[in-house]
Amino acid sequence: MGTNRLEAFSDGVIAVAVTLLVLDIHVPPITPDETLLHALLHNWPHYAAYAVSFMTIGIIWVNHHAMISRLARADHSILILNLLLLMSIVLMPFATELMAAYLRASSGQSLAAGVYAGAFLLMAVAFASLNRHILLARAHMLSIEIPLEERRRILARSVSGLAPYLVATILAVVSPYATLAICGALAVFYALPIASGGEAQPQ
Amino acid sequence: MGTNRLEAFSDGVIAVAVTLLVLDIHVPPITPDETLLHALLHNWPHYAAYAVSFMTIGIIWVNHHAMISRLARADHSILILNLLLLMSIVLMPFATELMAAYLRASSGQSLAAGVYAGAFLLMAVAFASLNRHILLARAHMLSIEIPLEERRRILARSVSGLAPYLVATILAVVSPYATLAICGALAVFYALPIASGGEAQPQ
Amino acid sequence: MGTNRLEAFSDGVIAVAVTLLVLDIHVPPITPDETLLHALLHNWPHYAAYAVSFMTIGIIWVNHHAMISRLARADHSILILNLLLLMSIVLMPFATELMAAYLRASSGQSLAAGVYAGAFLLMAVAFASLNRHILLARAHMLSIEIPLEERRRILARSVSGLAPYLVATILAVVSPYATLAICGALAVFYALPIASGGEAQPQ
Amino acid sequence: MGTNRLEAFSDGVIAVAVTLLVLDIHVPPITPDETLLHALLHNWPHYAAYAVSFMTIGIIWVNHHAMISRLARADHSILILNLLLLMSIVLMPFATELMAAYLRASSGQSLAAGVYAGAFLLMAVAFASLNRHILLARAHMLSIEIPLEERRRILARSVSGLAPYLVATILAVVSPYATLAICGALAVFYALPIASGGEAQPQ
Repeated sequence: MGTNRLEAFSDGVIAVAVTLLVLDIHVPPITPDETLLHALLHNWPHYAAYAVSFMTIGIIWVNHHAMISRLARADHSILILNLLLLMSIVLMPFATELMAAYLRASSGQSLAAGVYAGAFLLMAVAFASLNRHILLARAHMLSIEIPLEERRRILARSVSGLAPYLVATILAVVSPYATLAICGALAVFYALPIASGGEAQPQ
Repeated sequence: MGTNRLEAFSDGVIAVAVTLLVLDIHVPPITPDETLLHALLHNWPHYAAYAVSFMTIGIIWVNHHAMISRLARADHSILILNLLLLMSIVLMPFATELMAAYLRASSGQSLAAGVYAGAFLLMAVAFASLNRHILLARAHMLSIEIPLEERRRILARSVSGLAPYLVATILAVVSPYATLAICGALAVFYALPIASGGEAQPQ
Repeated sequence: MGTNRLEAFSDGVIAVAVTLLVLDIHVPPITPDETLLHALLHNWPHYAAYAVSFMTIGIIWVNHHAMISRLARADHSILILNLLLLMSIVLMPFATELMAAYLRASSGQSLAAGVYAGAFLLMAVAFASLNRHILLARAHMLSIEIPLEERRRILARSVSGLAPYLVATILAVVSPYATLAICGALAVFYALPIASGGEAQPQ
Repeated sequence: MGTNRLEAFSDGVIAVAVTLLVLDIHVPPITPDETLLHALLHNWPHYAAYAVSFMTIGIIWVNHHAMISRLARADHSILILNLLLLMSIVLMPFATELMAAYLRASSGQSLAAGVYAGAFLLMAVAFASLNRHILLARAHMLSIEIPLEERRRILARSVSGLAPYLVATILAVVSPYATLAICGALAVFYALPIASGGEAQPQ
């Protein structure tokens, strides 16, 4: 199969997943006891989590484009690994709401933050797996020949992106705020021009 | 009409349907009585149903691409049968949540699992019907001529895919877990390289 | 502007609107008082409304394609009228749920059915308005020249489609079931091969 | 990267965001105390906010197309600024529901209207920022050379669009109705043929 429809379907799934994030931001109920200002400010974890998840998924989309554009065509194995990657991306609205809802709870906050960073880690692993499969096992399907050394360099960047998300996941035990801060810092880092050596690189 | 916009619309509908599956996974409410870990683990039917539905719809998308790519153009009858197929796919977020919500209930669990497998069966029937219509009644619209024997072989694979979903639907009377296990096993089977003789084949 | 991105955006909006219809079908809460079978059967207005709305929007999509494919390019006025058409289509998940929720209520059922058929009428009016604008006021933007007589014939079909929805809206005063039946019959009629003189025609 | 997939992804996100607006329009619960007619009429802020937000996002989509179509290709910085623009657009379903829910509340209504107009302002700022970056900093990526004077003229229109939304945001302190009226008037103005000097221009 050509890669056009693979891209179109992936774009569609990622676009919907990223937009569903807004459903995690709830309108505060009208109450006599609390001002709207206070209620809105109190919801800050939802805004922070929204921004971090949106930008991270957005950067994954940028990288996904770079990854797929190297392909001349796709076979069954690439389609299935791509479905697994999309399946991990679609989990983000859930993981994002979980983290935001529990960030200030008296119990469960570490687990929620761990699931959040763990979902990022899962996306990064799925991305690196697909990238590895394309660059090594399906190198004959690339649209232009890329020297093995260069392919290994691209892959090393994908793999090196796993480490900070692993750290963020583990740090959730210590502090869920640290986890959120790391994930946010990574999103900012990958958004900066310095992070792109020709292509954006969260993984 | 050309098949481009037919593909674009189908991609869009399938991409949204598959992404809405995440809305079936609810964030547990914060309660003093139950730990988050316990609540998350307790929700396992939702994760299992999510994964099974996501992969099955994903494989249907792969097959849909293969089916439509054989066409040079589409007429009214193909568009309508395709709408019916999409209508069955869009039901999946409902059927998935129904099954997950009732899997461990003391009553209704068999019916819920039957509806779940029945929804897969409906998709498979809609897919096979469209495929049959394209390969037999609209063979003159194919982009390249395919011998009747080969067309019958493709169709036989679509039709043979109905049987296991019929079995899964009937087995819901005995055990809803068996139904879920069969649907999951089928998703894994069709995802494996062995299942694709040039194209993935859940139907 | 070319019509490619106009089609892509319209496809996206219609695909999402049609898929959101599934959110109107709720999983019955687990109760000791009622069996799941009874609860599911009791929800039949939601399934009927889902099927009618899905097929009708689907046929509008088919006609939208035919309408836009006549255009070589689009100007500001076409884009704005198209946005108004999309705005009416996106209302359908609301109108569909309203009708289904109130069909058997002791009060409000006629109004709900009237709003439902009225929403179809609104779509049909928005469609006919855009079609009229394209065929008469923007005839110089058509990709191939179409004789005035033929353009009037196409338009007459769009306009003639308004009448049955107007009847269905008015009949809501008498019986909401009649309204639903008419809308359903129209969806079936337009889906039949006989309804397409080269293109499907609900409007 | 070419601009095709940038457009496709942006189209997808905007199409989903605009369609999710319908989720803000709730079906009134069936109650013995209130007629459906009264309940539906009482919900008018939701319809007004829906229409205003839908048309404004729609016009932003039109302008987005004009902006991106000037580009021959996109680099990392354009993709990131485009993600920030999309992130502001996706907030609209939340801001729209907030405004509609609080418009007639006894407290919080000014803040809610301020957030609503502020969200429009944010979109306009994000749009103007991306437009400025494209027209000035990335002028060498334009598909056809545009004289500096002409580029400044296009940009001035983007920037001049900020003022009315700033006024609407500030006026929320005085009257949330005035804010809604201004946002609505702007949507109508930009939809009128007079507003398009070759392209629609809310910013």
